[in-house]
Amino acid sequence: MNKAFNVDLARNEANYQPLTPLTFLARAAEVMPAHTAIIHGSMRVSYAEFYQRSRQLASALSAAGMGRGDTVSALLPNVPAMLEAHYGVPMCQAVLHAINTRLDANTIAFQLDHAGAQMLLVDQRMLPLANEALALTECNPQVVVYVDPTLDEPTPRAANEIDYEAFLSTGDPQFEWLMPVDEWDAISIGYTSGTTGNPKGVVSHHRGAYLLAQGNALISNMPRYATYLWTLPMFHCNGWCFPWTMSVVFGTHVCLREVRAEPIWQAFEAHDVTHLCGAPPVMSVLVNTDPAERTVLKHPVEFMTAAAPPPKSVLAQMEAAGFNVTQLYGLTETYGPAVVNEWHQSWDALDADARTALKARQGVRYTPLERLAVLDPETMQPVAADGQTIGEVMFRGNVVMKGYFRNAKATDEAFAGGWFHSGDLGVMHPDGYVELKDRSKDIIISGGENISSIEVEDALYKHPAVAVAAVVAMPHEKWGETPCAFIELAAGESIDAEGLTAHCRAHLAGYKTPRAFVFETIPRTATGKIQKHELRKRVSQ
Amino acid sequence: MNKAFNVDLARNEANYQPLTPLTFLARAAEVMPAHTAIIHGSMRVSYAEFYQRSRQLASALSAAGMGRGDTVSALLPNVPAMLEAHYGVPMCQAVLHAINTRLDANTIAFQLDHAGAQMLLVDQRMLPLANEALALTECNPQVVVYVDPTLDEPTPRAANEIDYEAFLSTGDPQFEWLMPVDEWDAISIGYTSGTTGNPKGVVSHHRGAYLLAQGNALISNMPRYATYLWTLPMFHCNGWCFPWTMSVVFGTHVCLREVRAEPIWQAFEAHDVTHLCGAPPVMSVLVNTDPAERTVLKHPVEFMTAAAPPPKSVLAQMEAAGFNVTQLYGLTETYGPAVVNEWHQSWDALDADARTALKARQGVRYTPLERLAVLDPETMQPVAADGQTIGEVMFRGNVVMKGYFRNAKATDEAFAGGWFHSGDLGVMHPDGYVELKDRSKDIIISGGENISSIEVEDALYKHPAVAVAAVVAMPHEKWGETPCAFIELAAGESIDAEGLTAHCRAHLAGYKTPRAFVFETIPRTATGKIQKHELRKRVSQ
Repeated sequence: MNKAFNVDLARNEANYQPLTPLTFLARAAEVMPAHTAIIHGSMRVSYAEFYQRSRQLASALSAAGMGRGDTVSALLPNVPAMLEAHYGVPMCQAVLHAINTRLDANTIAFQLDHAGAQMLLVDQRMLPLANEALALTECNPQVVVYVDPTLDEPTPRAANEIDYEAFLSTGDPQFEWLMPVDEWDAISIGYTSGTTGNPKGVVSHHRGAYLLAQGNALISNMPRYATYLWTLPMFHCNGWCFPWTMSVVFGTHVCLREVRAEPIWQAFEAHDVTHLCGAPPVMSVLVNTDPAERTVLKHPVEFMTAAAPPPKSVLAQMEAAGFNVTQLYGLTETYGPAVVNEWHQSWDALDADARTALKARQGVRYTPLERLAVLDPETMQPVAADGQTIGEVMFRGNVVMKGYFRNAKATDEAFAGGWFHSGDLGVMHPDGYVELKDRSKDIIISGGENISSIEVEDALYKHPAVAVAAVVAMPHEKWGETPCAFIELAAGESIDAEGLTAHCRAHLAGYKTPRAFVFETIPRTATGKIQKHELRKRVSQ
Repeated sequence: MNKAFNVDLARNEANYQPLTPLTFLARAAEVMPAHTAIIHGSMRVSYAEFYQRSRQLASALSAAGMGRGDTVSALLPNVPAMLEAHYGVPMCQAVLHAINTRLDANTIAFQLDHAGAQMLLVDQRMLPLANEALALTECNPQVVVYVDPTLDEPTPRAANEIDYEAFLSTGDPQFEWLMPVDEWDAISIGYTSGTTGNPKGVVSHHRGAYLLAQGNALISNMPRYATYLWTLPMFHCNGWCFPWTMSVVFGTHVCLREVRAEPIWQAFEAHDVTHLCGAPPVMSVLVNTDPAERTVLKHPVEFMTAAAPPPKSVLAQMEAAGFNVTQLYGLTETYGPAVVNEWHQSWDALDADARTALKARQGVRYTPLERLAVLDPETMQPVAADGQTIGEVMFRGNVVMKGYFRNAKATDEAFAGGWFHSGDLGVMHPDGYVELKDRSKDIIISGGENISSIEVEDALYKHPAVAVAAVVAMPHEKWGETPCAFIELAAGESIDAEGLTAHCRAHLAGYKTPRAFVFETIPRTATGKIQKHELRKRVSQ
């Protein structure tokens, strides 16, 4: 009889709806239509307008043929159009492909082709880069150019490029936007910097985006009407889902084209910013601003950081300036942050060294992540929780990607054994907090961007004078890390740092070019394997 | 090619887990094991202990044969065992059936049989009521008696009754608790007071409980380490999901056996309470406490209320005492509150009358409710949003029940047209806020409990002297409403209010007995239908 709990009680329209973060904007616009959703320069966009423009974008895209599983790419900085794309694109059931604006044309072209871009939204200033990339593609997306009203500069456009506002005006502002067919449907695709071969396209779904967006609000304890400053690029894992989070709390987005001290401190002064995210270089910008040019914060500001843990001195300066810094950790594959350094109240009483050491730990799982573990990848058993034994950090839960686009092999490998393999090495402390210790895939994190040391080595090997190249992360005050290249020259060849820099710039995005070259014999193991840990030791001294 | 977004990217253990609020407790115990989860008198239970005891309960239940789809009933006040039941019961995949402790034995017996109770957790003081009910049942649940360590009184037990602590000790505190097989699996069943015929068993699922529990934290903007005072009975829609909400924020539960002024004000003084919920009678208790016996609140306390809107004078007194009152609205069918009076900052500047009028509105949908509407139940079209046109309030979303247990007809009716029909009549204001205007099913809300006027009339009709009975809600200062009965006597019969009160007490729970009887000719329409609105007018004067 009792098994009747699972009989006659099926899903229907009344009691089941796909989870999607798009409903957050609908709710904010219904409940707080006049509240300011977006600040951009002197522009103010209310929630009613934000929702209306997003629907208009969805309607225009729909009329242009976009629908379920179609790709709309975006090469945009942190401007209102990028926020509108986070709602408008999935509101016609299409998939948002946000492109890292710091990439080179080759990589962008690869992404556009691989993702099958059918539309491309481009910022006016990124049009030259877009056109360079498009010249290399096989796909032929319709280009829509965003002309930023806060910039006063000419934007010469080709005849086949549509103006963003003109495109929007073809849409219906009252468009009955489309819920996803299934909450497992893709909402976005974002490319990771591949460690070997080509970048991988991480596919996210509506369910995960809904859960992580709410998780951000819970984890950062965001009050209603919070004000969020966009120092984190939205092209990074969809801005860690914060474009959707802010609608949950009727919050205000403060857009920012560039991470520069002046507009950041102006935003603190003018808009009463409560929250921001960023890699360590954003902290450098903040603490290195001449105190005379800073504003005094009216209340503590929550700063959420990821990538490398902040050095003690920076942390101390951040705290002195009125910021509460929280370490987060995640990957594109986990929708952004899925791990948080949950701070114990009792830790406040510790001295600065102890607090810095605790702040440097990545932490524990986010509310919507069901499991976080450090496992031996061979046995898939947890390593000892002793803060010493290194294993691979692995994730299990609803904020883990659908998989890699058109790459079943990589997907299967990533999910082997029923866990997502992060590729990051770490330890588990006795209190259940994870701390990263190394990266198994030789990733260098520079200014919040992942750089594959292998990609840089591949570029170096293209030069005939290079016999052996080994690239490792070198600590850098502003960027956290930068690549450093160790080089053995081929017999009879010669080249200097300047020559190799020029060579790299021709083959790589600027931020991937090594900042230092060391010409010497590279240490190897008995079996001939390069000892990267030795190289890391040398550059860290 | 692009349709590949929905190809090769299936669910697996790594990227899909059933949503369940049980993971919240696991996380709180992992991250903040030493933090106090439960305060009960002089008892303190840490999160580590709470999780351990919940797993122990799950293990003991499992060993006793409980599993997926089995029913564990609970007749408990707001004590630690009731919190443990909210985790321990579903942690062995069984279904929690929390029973309203104010009901009469007949109704409880009906529920136990209908839900197919296999275990019954009973508070020591409720044992006589339980035994009275069990004598009337066909099912034969194993009785487990909770002896409250904060009470010092003898509890005579029958030989076949197990002690709660002894039962717990048969379980494994490290039990690997069971995730639900499917997030759509039942987590609880709760009975509504039926309007006609027998009560209906509302079945809730893990997905909805997860979403509403998080929704509560977001809506009430609950910070980490919030302290929640249990003035709301946990047997009401699982305490509106707050037993699960508190784990999300590492919060502290303050248990309360009874809603009395002294322990409530003591809790404010001793435990720095931040949040509480309750029907209007709880507010009466608060504002009617002699100011000399109150404590001065250290900070504003969030008070969430439902059922009848608070009268202006009570609201003013609550505000003066330091409470921020928020009106919520929902039904057992919506996991508790699914509608919230979202307060606009600009409304603070209005005068008291205007603010009271705004506070009295039920409001807008909760974050995890996808749609809220006032529809014409005939056409299923929205009524005009003019604050005047009455329609039926309807819900659509993930915090709507699975359906009514073993009652496909009622389930189908409730979900007709793809919306959950609340049975409540209301209007939609131009700004999108819903306000209840009447109840289509003659429900009287007394002290937060629903009373079916039809059930009371049925009881009255059992008396031979009653020819016609019509029961309506009468305003009451403390209880909000109480039943008032209009009676036409049968020819040649006579009985007075006292006699009918005694008759009702023999057939109904005490709180359902009319507080007033009016002996007179009852107004009817031309077709003979009783004009209840006329009766309501008379008692409201």
